[in-house]
Amino acid sequence: MESHVDNILNDLKKDDFQAYLLTQFTNVEYISGYRPTSFAFCIIKDDPIIYASKMDMELANNNSSIEVIEYESFDAIVEDLKCQGIRNMAIEPTLPFSTYVRFRDDFKIDSKTYIDKQRMIKTSDEIEKIQMATEIAQKSFLQLDILNNQNTEKEVAFDLVRLMIENGADKESFDTIVTSGANSSLPHAIPDAKTLDQPILIDWGAVFEGYCSDNTRTMVYTERQQEIWDIVAEAHDKAIKAARPDIKCCEVDKVARDIITEYGYGDKFIHSTGHSLGLDIHETPGFSTRDETVIERGMVITVEPGIYLEGEFGVRLEDTIAISKRGKVIGDLPLDIS
Amino acid sequence: MESHVDNILNDLKKDDFQAYLLTQFTNVEYISGYRPTSFAFCIIKDDPIIYASKMDMELANNNSSIEVIEYESFDAIVEDLKCQGIRNMAIEPTLPFSTYVRFRDDFKIDSKTYIDKQRMIKTSDEIEKIQMATEIAQKSFLQLDILNNQNTEKEVAFDLVRLMIENGADKESFDTIVTSGANSSLPHAIPDAKTLDQPILIDWGAVFEGYCSDNTRTMVYTERQQEIWDIVAEAHDKAIKAARPDIKCCEVDKVARDIITEYGYGDKFIHSTGHSLGLDIHETPGFSTRDETVIERGMVITVEPGIYLEGEFGVRLEDTIAISKRGKVIGDLPLDIS
Repeated sequence: MESHVDNILNDLKKDDFQAYLLTQFTNVEYISGYRPTSFAFCIIKDDPIIYASKMDMELANNNSSIEVIEYESFDAIVEDLKCQGIRNMAIEPTLPFSTYVRFRDDFKIDSKTYIDKQRMIKTSDEIEKIQMATEIAQKSFLQLDILNNQNTEKEVAFDLVRLMIENGADKESFDTIVTSGANSSLPHAIPDAKTLDQPILIDWGAVFEGYCSDNTRTMVYTERQQEIWDIVAEAHDKAIKAARPDIKCCEVDKVARDIITEYGYGDKFIHSTGHSLGLDIHETPGFSTRDETVIERGMVITVEPGIYLEGEFGVRLEDTIAISKRGKVIGDLPLDIS
Repeated sequence: MESHVDNILNDLKKDDFQAYLLTQFTNVEYISGYRPTSFAFCIIKDDPIIYASKMDMELANNNSSIEVIEYESFDAIVEDLKCQGIRNMAIEPTLPFSTYVRFRDDFKIDSKTYIDKQRMIKTSDEIEKIQMATEIAQKSFLQLDILNNQNTEKEVAFDLVRLMIENGADKESFDTIVTSGANSSLPHAIPDAKTLDQPILIDWGAVFEGYCSDNTRTMVYTERQQEIWDIVAEAHDKAIKAARPDIKCCEVDKVARDIITEYGYGDKFIHSTGHSLGLDIHETPGFSTRDETVIERGMVITVEPGIYLEGEFGVRLEDTIAISKRGKVIGDLPLDIS
């Protein structure tokens, strides 16, 4: 984490900023090892410091690799910084407007993505944790007894979370999606209290030591469903093959989108092809039509094309890849698990 | 929800604003009935509109009471608004800086809490949902078999979530806290894979039809633990009795804080006395030293004093009250459940 701070100090100096304010919990954790539970202001500067809430002081003192002091007021932070000669400050793009307002009169402020750019490139230790999270999630999925029972979507979702926790996950990495029949045309469907219908779409992940996993499988039953599944699988496989260093993220999206479009379903692929993950389930960059980021080694990004037929059903297939020489799939769950 | 829009239009007119931009998912849901799953821009104006992401269009069309169109780009929104003669706009305080930046060059912008002020006062329908969430959570707690087994904190937390879902909850309203022994001095402790120690502190809640509940109970075993428990219970009971319309939120905090301070533990009560809840688990106003909001009928606020002895243990007791003539406790779980 010391190197994280050093890298950001270098970025700051290049752009003539004296400090960088971080408040997003996972950003503070990435820098210090301490994940706030209430609120915190992490200020990266020559002597980096975290202002933590009183209720977090014990936790922060135990876990933070950088100095922590108790938050008293915005005014006190502003005074501290001014006394240290700080006149300008970079902020996170996600900073709430109401926090920005507290600083804008006293400092020259602009938002910078230094932290996001650093978090994009995972260390081998981070990739190992994502790998563990994925293995736990996939093992749990295989232990599910979906087909031989009359469970509801909600029950299956719950069973999957139970299995992930029994297998060592901290928790689910997002609200588990188990959806079936016509509901599956909603990409972020909420599990229903109805018995499983066909097809069955499950989108799930585990958290292991803070790091997320993300997978989707769709089990299809009719010829029509299989036809759509085959198109999505082709887009999935070819996008994974396309992902490698030095090409742009949007080019990977284009591979998946072109295939689905050729088959006549371009307007039914209603989201981007993938997103990065790590401490957060959604990070940058993403495989989307507009993301011009050049792919680098160490990025961890999902590939999840889908086709959604309103009133009928939806199919999505998702794996997470770690970029080395090319995109290497994390985990070993077959795509076709029926 | 029509009246919600009308009330906000009145607020806008008083302050000479032409539009109000909302992006926080629960704000969009409060106004329209549609909870975004990806992103959305809800603009309250004479003809209110929601720009929803492509992947949410089916869901939004099904659930929203106000018109929805598909988001194309920030530029397209800005153009639409300018064509309609809109020159100034109020925003949510929580709006991310990066979104604010997209609008600041074309509109006069300031943040306003119109939506928070309206969400503060719950309708009887909203209070009924919070009541149902609370009943589910409390019933589930009583079904837990804590004392006669050798379960870990993590297992007990999981069992409680399972029971809540079996009893009709959508999900837990926040990461369930089951902590014991010395860990309980961390107000937001994460359940550990260790067998339950003493005392046991459980802070949990359910979501029912989108609305949250929140309770905490601490089970104590030694004289010293009981002594601390009694102080916290006195602060809890007297703060609840103090809460009534027309006094300030900070006065309720003071009642609890003064009692704990008199016993010599003022510096061990390291958070505020309570927070509002509803669609979100943390809403405004709160019973805190600095919140000067005058209490009104329809507010739903927690009362949760605590004493945290680092290296020893912590005690917190929490109920949620709905303000009518005075603070009425929601649910009927005894404070002393040992």
